[in-house]
Amino acid sequence: MNLDDIYRPINEEREKVERCLDAATDVDVPLLRQLLEYALKGRGKRIRPSLALLCGRLHAYDSSLVVPMAAAVELLHTATLVHDDVVDHSPVRRGKPTVSRAWGENRALLLGDYLFAKAGSLAASTGNLRVIELFAETIMTISSSEMRQSVYSFDLREARGYYYTWISAKTASLFSLATESGAVLGQSPEDMVVAMRDYGHNFGMAFQILDDVLDFVGEEAEVGKPVGSDLGEGAVTLPSILYADSHPGDNLIKRVIENRDAESVALAVEKIRNSPAIAECLAIASDFSSRARRAIEKLPDNDIRQALLDLATYIIKRRK
Amino acid sequence: MNLDDIYRPINEEREKVERCLDAATDVDVPLLRQLLEYALKGRGKRIRPSLALLCGRLHAYDSSLVVPMAAAVELLHTATLVHDDVVDHSPVRRGKPTVSRAWGENRALLLGDYLFAKAGSLAASTGNLRVIELFAETIMTISSSEMRQSVYSFDLREARGYYYTWISAKTASLFSLATESGAVLGQSPEDMVVAMRDYGHNFGMAFQILDDVLDFVGEEAEVGKPVGSDLGEGAVTLPSILYADSHPGDNLIKRVIENRDAESVALAVEKIRNSPAIAECLAIASDFSSRARRAIEKLPDNDIRQALLDLATYIIKRRK
Repeated sequence: MNLDDIYRPINEEREKVERCLDAATDVDVPLLRQLLEYALKGRGKRIRPSLALLCGRLHAYDSSLVVPMAAAVELLHTATLVHDDVVDHSPVRRGKPTVSRAWGENRALLLGDYLFAKAGSLAASTGNLRVIELFAETIMTISSSEMRQSVYSFDLREARGYYYTWISAKTASLFSLATESGAVLGQSPEDMVVAMRDYGHNFGMAFQILDDVLDFVGEEAEVGKPVGSDLGEGAVTLPSILYADSHPGDNLIKRVIENRDAESVALAVEKIRNSPAIAECLAIASDFSSRARRAIEKLPDNDIRQALLDLATYIIKRRK
Repeated sequence: MNLDDIYRPINEEREKVERCLDAATDVDVPLLRQLLEYALKGRGKRIRPSLALLCGRLHAYDSSLVVPMAAAVELLHTATLVHDDVVDHSPVRRGKPTVSRAWGENRALLLGDYLFAKAGSLAASTGNLRVIELFAETIMTISSSEMRQSVYSFDLREARGYYYTWISAKTASLFSLATESGAVLGQSPEDMVVAMRDYGHNFGMAFQILDDVLDFVGEEAEVGKPVGSDLGEGAVTLPSILYADSHPGDNLIKRVIENRDAESVALAVEKIRNSPAIAECLAIASDFSSRARRAIEKLPDNDIRQALLDLATYIIKRRK
């Protein structure tokens, strides 16, 4: 099962989203155009816009509304990445220098602002106030969560609950924006909208946990950034939490957080990647993926629902 | 003529805007709440939201729509200030440390993102798609203009035109957003909407030119930042341009831009503030103010129109 197969029912709409993203780079400030192209042409997997398209297709369907919203979701996602890379001083993203590293943090900040607004403009072009409101709420959820994270100090007793709250806000919220807005724009009845929102939330949780696992066990060439980057930047994710949980006498994680010296980080990454914590994380990701699939099992049985089911399986099997 | 007198017809609505801004600080992340209060409680002159309220009152009037939009405009303005201070590494704003100086640039970036989104959410709450679209376009105008500014290199021959384009995008756009959205939400007929947009644009141009003059001739205690800050940060505004224009043999401005050493900056500020360039700038500001007043002279003659006329005079007479 690969992404091309899964995406087949929405190939045409996905191409329209690409054209919409291309159009978003057509601005009259040369530097801005260059940065927009750099940030958008990386062609990630485009999972979020594809989710919006699929959910928009499950009931009635009007591609003139769902396509701009799918593009808005991708632009919003890109905006958050660009600003994240400023906050984290990250040098590399998807195997190439970040905007902030290549053009400086000021321009990355302005690019992110522009992307937020362009995304908002596309969301507004749907004319659907519920979707527009949801869009604004999602940015508030993400930025307030990052603010909370900026003063977070690790406490193992509450780390797992905190982690779930954190990834729900920073990642799953964007996935549920994609699925819920697709459903709303596709004029789905309310119970279907709720089902697709639940699907998006659980999908996003599974997606992020897998990302956090790949940060330990992935290949740098595939993941696009050095192994163990998160821990090196002080972000304590589920693999570290589960490892610390099952090694109560071992102060390794605590030491890494306090010192963040390269040697401790390397040692921690090595120990965690070879520990049962990785399998436990994968089991938890699998559980969220199952919940996502269960959320939509009562929806009409067609090729679109099948694509959503397959995608929820794909994202916990992926290697990058 | 003072602001309290001018604002009298909208005292009640202005209080509602304050309560709306207070409500915007009521969030469950303590640090975010603290930063929102810090950024919003400074109580500037609230000129932008007051313009929205006045323009919303000129025709039909529904305060349940105009008040949240007025608050949205103030939040958007605050967001741009917070991000500007990150980009410019400014230490002081309105006589107190900037958010980025007091809490760090990362948190200032996140605060700005949150403020943009909260502003967007309030704009969306009006349910008026034209206003929502206008709101998003304004952020695009401001951020793309700042991006252009980041690669601008001073050329005296085109400096004046560039300056007008720049302040139109970075400042006047927010004023015309306030006046146009007020007019639209007040269900004004299209010719009145156009008149109020023109008013807002010209008002904003006059406002910024006066700000740029005050940067040279104002009292630090009143302006809230050191005299000559702009030039010290490399921003060439109208007083410098007019001075350079009338001193073709003097390379002072060029030297300041190239070196930005404290001594050249201080010398330039001293020369400019004592030159006829200041009076010329004030005449130009006065001309924009007149255009603003002329734009609305055909509107119904009532206390609201009078307040708008007075405000356009006030802003070119102010000392801070």
